[in-house]
Amino acid sequence: MSFNRFRCIRSAAANGAKALQYRSSAIGRRYISGDAPKVLPDIEPSRLEVTRTNTPGELPPSSQLLFGRTFTDHMIRVSWTEAEGWSVPRIEPFGTINLNPSATVLHYAQSLFEGLKAYRQPNGTITMFRPDMNMKRMNSSAQRLALPTFDGAALTEVIKELVRLDKNWIPKEPGHSLYIRPALIGTNGLLGIQPPSEALLFVICSPVGPYYPKGFKPVPLYGTTEYIRAAPGGTGAFKLAANYAPGVVAQKSAAQAGYVQNLWLHGPEHYLTEVGTMNLFIVLKGSDGVVELVTPPLDGMILPGVTRDSVLALARNHVAGTKRLDGLPEQIKISERPITMAEVISASKSGQLVELFGTGTAAVVCPVDKIGYLGSDVHIPTGPDGMGPISKPLWKELVGIQTGVVESEWNVVV
Amino acid sequence: MSFNRFRCIRSAAANGAKALQYRSSAIGRRYISGDAPKVLPDIEPSRLEVTRTNTPGELPPSSQLLFGRTFTDHMIRVSWTEAEGWSVPRIEPFGTINLNPSATVLHYAQSLFEGLKAYRQPNGTITMFRPDMNMKRMNSSAQRLALPTFDGAALTEVIKELVRLDKNWIPKEPGHSLYIRPALIGTNGLLGIQPPSEALLFVICSPVGPYYPKGFKPVPLYGTTEYIRAAPGGTGAFKLAANYAPGVVAQKSAAQAGYVQNLWLHGPEHYLTEVGTMNLFIVLKGSDGVVELVTPPLDGMILPGVTRDSVLALARNHVAGTKRLDGLPEQIKISERPITMAEVISASKSGQLVELFGTGTAAVVCPVDKIGYLGSDVHIPTGPDGMGPISKPLWKELVGIQTGVVESEWNVVV
Repeated sequence: MSFNRFRCIRSAAANGAKALQYRSSAIGRRYISGDAPKVLPDIEPSRLEVTRTNTPGELPPSSQLLFGRTFTDHMIRVSWTEAEGWSVPRIEPFGTINLNPSATVLHYAQSLFEGLKAYRQPNGTITMFRPDMNMKRMNSSAQRLALPTFDGAALTEVIKELVRLDKNWIPKEPGHSLYIRPALIGTNGLLGIQPPSEALLFVICSPVGPYYPKGFKPVPLYGTTEYIRAAPGGTGAFKLAANYAPGVVAQKSAAQAGYVQNLWLHGPEHYLTEVGTMNLFIVLKGSDGVVELVTPPLDGMILPGVTRDSVLALARNHVAGTKRLDGLPEQIKISERPITMAEVISASKSGQLVELFGTGTAAVVCPVDKIGYLGSDVHIPTGPDGMGPISKPLWKELVGIQTGVVESEWNVVV
Repeated sequence: MSFNRFRCIRSAAANGAKALQYRSSAIGRRYISGDAPKVLPDIEPSRLEVTRTNTPGELPPSSQLLFGRTFTDHMIRVSWTEAEGWSVPRIEPFGTINLNPSATVLHYAQSLFEGLKAYRQPNGTITMFRPDMNMKRMNSSAQRLALPTFDGAALTEVIKELVRLDKNWIPKEPGHSLYIRPALIGTNGLLGIQPPSEALLFVICSPVGPYYPKGFKPVPLYGTTEYIRAAPGGTGAFKLAANYAPGVVAQKSAAQAGYVQNLWLHGPEHYLTEVGTMNLFIVLKGSDGVVELVTPPLDGMILPGVTRDSVLALARNHVAGTKRLDGLPEQIKISERPITMAEVISASKSGQLVELFGTGTAAVVCPVDKIGYLGSDVHIPTGPDGMGPISKPLWKELVGIQTGVVESEWNVVV
C-alpha cells in the first residue's frame, strides 16, 4: 500500500507537482507472517549506498563561518516504515526533503534532533566527541514521541562515512569543527494524531568556527518567569523540536530588555533550570570554605546534556584523584540538586557566589555576569579573562580533549 | 557561502528532487528606503494565481472516507520573507512541499495550524463555519512563535476560491463536510534558533464523513497525571504543532489502560483542563436544582476552541432569551471557572454530576461515560442515546447551523 503512495510521489516528480493520492491507508498495518513476528531491519552500515555529488562546493574562509548556515556536500538519509523497518542507509548529495503537505512533522512537530561535533586533531586524525551519548539521547527522544528507535552504534558508523567523505569541509584552523546535525521526523501524510507509520532520519553537517574568537564574553541572563521551557510531565528532558520554537519570543523579549539569554525559572520557588538552550552550573563557596559545584538534577525537566555530563565527570575524576586538573581546589562538593533564585541571591549578597555558567555543545562553557530578576540585577562574579576559577580548568580540559591536546576515550576516531 | 549550499540543492534537482532556488539569503536583510519604512505586502486575494491540475482525482465513496487521509486536487501556497512580505497567493495542484533539510520547521517546530469545515447546504450553497475565529487564532499562534501575521479576511477569500475550485470533493451525503487545514511553517534553512526570516502558509482540504455514523458513542477518559498537555507560561492557548506530538505516547498509554482519550489534569489539585485534543464541559446540578455548565477558563493553558466558544454563545443566548433552544432548562448558570477532580468526584457521588463532554471541530460534541482516575473509575451519566440532556440540544442547534437547517450569521457563504 505504500507502493501506491510512492508511485504517486514519483509521478509528482515527473509533473513538477501533483496529487498524492492515498488510495489505501497505512494505519494499523502490521507485518504478520505465521505466528512468528518478523524481525524488521535496523540501520545496517554494511548496506550503505553512497551517491557522490557532481558539483562539490568549497569551504568558505573561516571569517565567513556562521553556525548552521553553510552545509557540506553530502547528507545521510535513512527512511523507516512500520511495515518494513529501516531502509538501506544512503549518503547522497545535500538536497531538499520533499514532504507530503499533510506530513505529521509539519502539523504536529513529530521531530527530534541531536547536535555533536567532529574535530580535526593536530596529527590530522578526525574524531567525534562522545557520539554514543547523542545516539542514546536520540533514541530516548524517539521513544518519547513514539517515533522508531534504532541501533545508535550503526548510525554512528554511517555518520563516520559521511564525515570521511566530507572531511575537506572541516576547517583546519584551531578551535574550528564540523557540527553534525542528525534529525528524525514523522513523514506520514495522514492528519490523524497518532504514532507515525513512516519516518525519515537524516544527518547534515555544517563547518563552524570557534565560539569565542575574541576571548570569553560573559553574558547577562534574563530571569524568565512569564514563559517556560519545560514543566513536570512535559518534554524538557528530551531533545524534541517542540521544545525550541516556543522559546523564540522569550528570547526576543529578553533581548529587548537588554539581556542575551533566558534563565528559565520553574515554579513559585523560581528554581533555576536551564540557560537559553544550555544546561546550567552554579558555583558556591560554603561557610567552611569548600566549593560546591551545583547543577539542577535530571528530574524530567532538564536536558541530559553531553557537556553537562562531561563537566560532572571531569569534576568527579578530579575529586576522586583519577585525573587531577590544574587550578581546581582539591576538594569540591559536586551536587545535582535543585537551587532557587533566593539561594543564588543570598549567596551573591554574602560573597559566597563564585560563578555561574552554561554548558552546551556550541559554547562548551558560557560564563554569566548578571541575572536580571524581578526588576533588578543580581551580580555574578567573573574572572579577569571573563571565565570563573572553577569553569576555566574544566573548560580547558574539555576543549583539550576535544581538540586532541589531551588524550581521552571520549574521542571516537572517524 | 549560501551560494555553494544552494548550488548543491540545484544539483539535487537534476536528480529527481525539485529545486529551491534561493539566490541570496534573507538573513538580516531589511528593506530600507530613505527614512520611511516600506510597507510590505500582505496576502492579496486580487493577485491570486490559479494553476489547475491536469489529472483531477475522484471523491472516494463515503464509506472509504477517513479523517485526513484523502485530499482534494488543489492547495493554497503563500510564501513570506522578512524582506519582501507575503508573496502572491497561489492555488496549485496538490503536491509536495520541498524543504531545505535545515528548514526550521523540521528542527525546531516552527509550525502552527488550524482546522475548519465547509458544508454543502440542502440548497446547494457551500458555507464555512466561523472562519474569522480560525483566522484570528491562527494570527495569535503566529505571534506566539514569532512567525508572520496576515490579513485573515484576505486568506479567507483565497480559501473560498480553493473550496469553489474543489467543490466536487465535498460529499453530498448528510453529515459530511470538507475539512480545511491551513498551516504556517518556518522555512529558513538556518540552524540558529531565531524568528524565521522565511515562511510558507499552505492550505489543504480533505473530505470527511460524519463523526458518529452509527449514533453517539460516549468515550471513557483516562485522568492523566503522568503527562501534561500544557502548563502556565507554555503554549496550550495556541494551536501550535509543538502541542501535539508529545501527546501521542500519553494517548497510547491511555489506550493500553482501556481508555479512549486523555483527560489532561493540571497541578496538585488535578484541575480538569482538556480532553485529548478537545475542550471540556462539565454539567452540574446545584443543591438549588439549577444546572451549571462549567468549562475551564482561558487562563493561558486552554485552547480557545471555536466549538467551545459557539457552545458558550448558544447557551448564553438561550439564557438571555435571544434564542431559546428546545430541551434546555430555562435557567442555566454558565461558568468559565477552574474545576478539580475532587469536585467532579463529589458531584458524581452525590448525583449532582449531570454530564461531561468534549467539544471540537471534528466531533462537535463528544460525550464521556467514565473517567479512570488514580486506579478507579468515576461514573459519568449519559442519556439513553449516549448524549446528555444539556449537550444534546446544544449539539442539535450547532449541527443545525452548520448544515444549513438553522439560519445563522456564523455561516459564511463560499
